[in-house]
Amino acid sequence: MNKTLKTLILILMLFGIRPTFAQNKIIVYQSDFGLKDGAVSEMKGVAIGVSADLKLYDLTHEIPNYNIWEASYRLFQTVSYWPKGTVFVSVVDPGVGTARKSVVLKTNTGQFIVTPDNGTLTLVAQTYGIAAIRQIDEVKNRRAGSGKSYTFHGRDVYSYTAARLAAGVITFEQVGPELPKQVVSIPYQRSVFEGGKLKGTIDIHDVQYGNIWTDISEGLVKQLNPKYGDLLHLKIFNKGKLVHESDAPYSETFGSVPEGKPLVYLNSLMQLSFALNMGSFADAYKIGSGADWSVEVTKK
Amino acid sequence: MNKTLKTLILILMLFGIRPTFAQNKIIVYQSDFGLKDGAVSEMKGVAIGVSADLKLYDLTHEIPNYNIWEASYRLFQTVSYWPKGTVFVSVVDPGVGTARKSVVLKTNTGQFIVTPDNGTLTLVAQTYGIAAIRQIDEVKNRRAGSGKSYTFHGRDVYSYTAARLAAGVITFEQVGPELPKQVVSIPYQRSVFEGGKLKGTIDIHDVQYGNIWTDISEGLVKQLNPKYGDLLHLKIFNKGKLVHESDAPYSETFGSVPEGKPLVYLNSLMQLSFALNMGSFADAYKIGSGADWSVEVTKK
Amino acid sequence: MNKTLKTLILILMLFGIRPTFAQNKIIVYQSDFGLKDGAVSEMKGVAIGVSADLKLYDLTHEIPNYNIWEASYRLFQTVSYWPKGTVFVSVVDPGVGTARKSVVLKTNTGQFIVTPDNGTLTLVAQTYGIAAIRQIDEVKNRRAGSGKSYTFHGRDVYSYTAARLAAGVITFEQVGPELPKQVVSIPYQRSVFEGGKLKGTIDIHDVQYGNIWTDISEGLVKQLNPKYGDLLHLKIFNKGKLVHESDAPYSETFGSVPEGKPLVYLNSLMQLSFALNMGSFADAYKIGSGADWSVEVTKK
Repeated sequence: MNKTLKTLILILMLFGIRPTFAQNKIIVYQSDFGLKDGAVSEMKGVAIGVSADLKLYDLTHEIPNYNIWEASYRLFQTVSYWPKGTVFVSVVDPGVGTARKSVVLKTNTGQFIVTPDNGTLTLVAQTYGIAAIRQIDEVKNRRAGSGKSYTFHGRDVYSYTAARLAAGVITFEQVGPELPKQVVSIPYQRSVFEGGKLKGTIDIHDVQYGNIWTDISEGLVKQLNPKYGDLLHLKIFNKGKLVHESDAPYSETFGSVPEGKPLVYLNSLMQLSFALNMGSFADAYKIGSGADWSVEVTKK
Repeated sequence: MNKTLKTLILILMLFGIRPTFAQNKIIVYQSDFGLKDGAVSEMKGVAIGVSADLKLYDLTHEIPNYNIWEASYRLFQTVSYWPKGTVFVSVVDPGVGTARKSVVLKTNTGQFIVTPDNGTLTLVAQTYGIAAIRQIDEVKNRRAGSGKSYTFHGRDVYSYTAARLAAGVITFEQVGPELPKQVVSIPYQRSVFEGGKLKGTIDIHDVQYGNIWTDISEGLVKQLNPKYGDLLHLKIFNKGKLVHESDAPYSETFGSVPEGKPLVYLNSLMQLSFALNMGSFADAYKIGSGADWSVEVTKK
Repeated sequence: MNKTLKTLILILMLFGIRPTFAQNKIIVYQSDFGLKDGAVSEMKGVAIGVSADLKLYDLTHEIPNYNIWEASYRLFQTVSYWPKGTVFVSVVDPGVGTARKSVVLKTNTGQFIVTPDNGTLTLVAQTYGIAAIRQIDEVKNRRAGSGKSYTFHGRDVYSYTAARLAAGVITFEQVGPELPKQVVSIPYQRSVFEGGKLKGTIDIHDVQYGNIWTDISEGLVKQLNPKYGDLLHLKIFNKGKLVHESDAPYSETFGSVPEGKPLVYLNSLMQLSFALNMGSFADAYKIGSGADWSVEVTKK
């Protein structure tokens, strides 16, 4: 029977079946490359060259050019919906060729993120915690044949390392040396209620509609305790400089204000948001998003 | 030998192999979410969390916002090219949070469609027929942990249910209670030849070129029986109101009319269509598409 | 034992496991269809109908309409990063319905490309070489049920044939009759150093920034032998007609010239390129790309 078992396993291996590892053979890609050229496909081809059993998915490749904050936000938004062991690759890398480290972070929730440590990990590290972080040994973990004249890091280092990790060709330890549990973090106004003011950051826009989403949660809003219909006073700052100031009612529905008028509401993530009914708050007042954009909200 | 067989199956299961079900582990996604944010990736992550063996594909995520007609049309256009057992998820849902039902329809051709029943099923139900339709039991078929403050239905109900169905975790019967074989249908001018007039609806535009495609088939056109070169009279209505009227020759090739001039022709689906040679009929005359846009065509 | 082995293989086949073939079950798609309609999904559905084990990836579907040169360039750019046996499908086909042949080319590097032979193979054939080329037998290799009134070649012939080849349903020989080892090639100025001039073609733009990339390699540039800071004289021709002429320094970094000023540099592929620091060279001077766009560069 023992012999039969061995035969079985041999046969199974002949058919390309191997026992699974901690990683789950899944890679999810994010970049600011867009989908018009071959860059994303090159990254995926290199991964499939490591193991044809890998399953490759996308987060988005439409991160605005070099927008590290948004890369950080999109990871924060999606990482926890993928199973433990999933390997994310995020390549938004204005500093390619500079001294930023190439790392793999393992979150306390069990996902891996392969990325330049340039701020991309800001929100994931703060939200899900760092189980461990390792610097990629770019000598060992680099596509054969790359690096002679030019290295496309997204392809030759990040996707290649992610593929080897996801496929179980290397362990997390074999990525490279362990680093202290800290990442390069983009400074921003953390959400807080103090001195009667709600303070926070404009995380992101609801792109399709031009609504402004902040990181101020329902719990903090309860401390200000507005009632529907109460007029709130908004201040929006860009790099600390006041760029917009207005009053708007705290509203349960968009329809509770006339068309074109502003409102304050809790969005689908239960975070404080600003909008124009049937209009774009972002366009009307030229409001951006990211770490440079902070807000203050008070009762009138 | 019986014992060996059991051992075999146990080993195969250890290796993650399970017998196949009626469903084929394939999900095809459609939405109006675009690909700039994390919504599509969240839906796919939840599905992979149900079973890493699922194979996830896309129809399109570029349905214009809240355009249920186009969602219906794209499903109609593609469903039959995928194998029996394929599970489609379509999330174009202006009424999220309202009383529309969440359903799974099985077509007579063997595909499943998971969607809000808000008109999205109009053309699929009429074209491929309803084998059965079930309302999703949102208590049982809902992602664990969702629904406390906010539910993203596309992720927490539709993708989750589709994944469980496609992976064979639940049967079609376990989706929820069976409903009568009818769906919410968008009213529109069905194509017909009557009183010497061809009547129909502008299904869709040939987006890249601005050509106008109707649902009037070659068979109906034969009843009008135009010859190449015959002048036809077109009327285009928006919500029943005449918005465009012109004459154009029935043509075999675009080049048979001068540049910038209109023609009537059979498109690649053998349906009656209007175009400008080297121009955009849709832009030139501000013509839309969908259930609100009907046409009448007569011989001069 | 022999009997046990047979039983084993039978069981494995019941579980959907088959021995692998020379092809690797991977298809990579490219087209000018965009992702707004159902065309790409129809192609993939037909492939999955051939074998649910296929793994389907994308190069891009954003090739500009009918731009055969760019289709050729994107294949050239990415083919070699995918494993041997990968089957590419490229459908950029302005001549659909005309006499262009439908072919499968096998490169000397072991990848297959299924495409109309209309110039799409220009750069792949020149760069990777032709191991063999076969014309698709469109009688045998055509989706059942297609071809009565209308054939969508991308779906009914190209994707269907690619799927059967990739899945091992047919061998390369069964694609159709072998052709002479030559393809339809787009004529263009091959890169060369002669008479003190660098000559070449504007392969492509760096789309996101509007930089101009030529096919003039580092090796040729060394023959001209400019030093950083040397002023170079550029001439750009469209269909042989001079459309732009200017001087710009050969530069190591963009920052070595003032904002808005031109520079000449080696891009990430080590090819001679033109740019405006913090601007778009392509937009500023209305420069296109492709076989019609050639350049000459001399030292001042």
